[in-house]
Amino acid sequence: MAIQVSDLSSFCVTALKAAGLNERDARTTAEALVLTDTWGVHTHGTKNLRGYIRRIREGGIHGKAQPHVDSEGLAWAIIDGDGAIGMVASGFAMNVAIEKARQTGIAYVGLHNSCHFGAACVYANLAAARGMIGIAMSNDTPTVAVPGSRQAVLGSNPISYAIPVEGSNAILLDIATSTVAGGKVFAAAAHQQKIPEGWLIDDLGAPTSNPALFPDHATLTPMSGHKGYGIALLIETLSAILTGAAVMKNVLSWSFGDPKVPTNHGAAFIAIDIGAIMVSPLFQGRLQEAIDQLRNAPRAPGCDRIYLPGEKEWEHRKESLTHGLELPPEIIASLHDLAKELSLKWTLY
Amino acid sequence: MAIQVSDLSSFCVTALKAAGLNERDARTTAEALVLTDTWGVHTHGTKNLRGYIRRIREGGIHGKAQPHVDSEGLAWAIIDGDGAIGMVASGFAMNVAIEKARQTGIAYVGLHNSCHFGAACVYANLAAARGMIGIAMSNDTPTVAVPGSRQAVLGSNPISYAIPVEGSNAILLDIATSTVAGGKVFAAAAHQQKIPEGWLIDDLGAPTSNPALFPDHATLTPMSGHKGYGIALLIETLSAILTGAAVMKNVLSWSFGDPKVPTNHGAAFIAIDIGAIMVSPLFQGRLQEAIDQLRNAPRAPGCDRIYLPGEKEWEHRKESLTHGLELPPEIIASLHDLAKELSLKWTLY
Repeated sequence: MAIQVSDLSSFCVTALKAAGLNERDARTTAEALVLTDTWGVHTHGTKNLRGYIRRIREGGIHGKAQPHVDSEGLAWAIIDGDGAIGMVASGFAMNVAIEKARQTGIAYVGLHNSCHFGAACVYANLAAARGMIGIAMSNDTPTVAVPGSRQAVLGSNPISYAIPVEGSNAILLDIATSTVAGGKVFAAAAHQQKIPEGWLIDDLGAPTSNPALFPDHATLTPMSGHKGYGIALLIETLSAILTGAAVMKNVLSWSFGDPKVPTNHGAAFIAIDIGAIMVSPLFQGRLQEAIDQLRNAPRAPGCDRIYLPGEKEWEHRKESLTHGLELPPEIIASLHDLAKELSLKWTLY
Repeated sequence: MAIQVSDLSSFCVTALKAAGLNERDARTTAEALVLTDTWGVHTHGTKNLRGYIRRIREGGIHGKAQPHVDSEGLAWAIIDGDGAIGMVASGFAMNVAIEKARQTGIAYVGLHNSCHFGAACVYANLAAARGMIGIAMSNDTPTVAVPGSRQAVLGSNPISYAIPVEGSNAILLDIATSTVAGGKVFAAAAHQQKIPEGWLIDDLGAPTSNPALFPDHATLTPMSGHKGYGIALLIETLSAILTGAAVMKNVLSWSFGDPKVPTNHGAAFIAIDIGAIMVSPLFQGRLQEAIDQLRNAPRAPGCDRIYLPGEKEWEHRKESLTHGLELPPEIIASLHDLAKELSLKWTLY
């Protein structure tokens, strides 16, 4: 049954306020999670609300946190997330990057003392909404092998970007640097499906198609081998080594780790002010030329249309806003359990 | 037979000067190409010298070019490469990024009116040599399909980075955003070897293992499908759409295109001044902690050692400097032909 997007947002705000967040932080978090669900990316949306709230109630996420600038220069800043929920700390950090880029053309903002930030492109998209190219990335608790290892060494360290397109939605990419995101393996395990060889290796380093082994007895493989490994290590450097966040195995799992202990995730945000560098109509004309080349490329048999990065997700969002959101039953169940835990009225239908 | 690295450098400088470059530009170019060969990356080293010099002699590369800043702000600049050989224009651009990052913490420098720049990590490494994180990327003439297309739409748009490591060589990654670089397909064709399915699709969009079809009747696949496509489009944006360079199919092939016509490749360079953001010993200690986690990860059967990105290449360079460089015979032959074309004495052995 379809849920109205505004109803889902209200439920999230109510739940987060009941857990101790103020109105503004509850809205920021709810917007991030519901936006992600409307894109159809259910692994990173309200599915995780119950887990985040568990951490808030146990103390591993500070509900009253006040993220702030720790140190800064002309075109950079390091933000102390103060143990905030990842959406609040990350939104704060990207907004600092946007303000600084307005002065200098490009800015880098690193974040420590944060938690899992959900979908990276939520923050990249904040920059695109201000006419800038946004780039967002994060480290995470290790779930991915490196070439030659048989256990997880790096997180699935996602990277995302957004490029504003005049009169349309932003071009938006958000990818894990593992072959697939862990969420897809969990989903296969939940549905008792086999997974393709190449996604996971087992404890002995051999490929396995059994998703139930993950994460205790299997680890994700890096995207394209040494390529994903290399990109993940750059993300670890910009998100954690250079920011003061926990590095690699020192990052606690936000979902499996002790909910009383902060995870100390790190993240990095880059904003590039297009208008400072090239007059906007010229940039948009040149971008449109690239888009036309993509859309008009000769298609392979069976392909009706070539999509821009993020285009399917924006169409899913439009559909969700018009006809409501079809959340998977396990997410509805999780939200229902959360309502009971917080003694909230169940308002979703 | 092994060639002394210094002899190879001298030969390149002599050849480039004979083609009309001044001493400084000839040295810059020779250093880039020979450094690449010493890393063992022969697809992007002196193999291409003859082709670059052909372009210089025909006018498609300006031997007397003077790259210069076209426009700039606090933390960014756009460079007009003036049609220079890619190594000269790109070295100039990265050096501007390094100078600006020293003032602001991070800088973005875009380059237009350049040519093929060889191995991206040559320029990323310039930043690492000054204690900065360097990122370098470029667009190129289309050789790579996007999901759903059956012809090339984007270039193999490489991206590279370098991170300085105290007391050791920089961590260095340099990857094409195609499944494999075109050079590997050409190498397989030259040796009449089949290639794995997944590297190429033919004119009808079907996988092929025949490297001889490339590039006229086959196109490279993007790395990890939509992931490589998405990253390549960001690289196109930062290297070309935002810099004024030719976009996608408007980039001429440096090797197959009319050598009289400039290719107008674009590129982008980012430098991040580590020391401005975190005191260097602290950063290096934290980086070492990450390196230790990588090196000490439990290994898969048959794996003796876990390598850092670039580590194999640096070891190849050390070996080359000590015992000389073993260049593939087709590269020796190409350099020999070049010597004849320029009426140079053959000094390599």
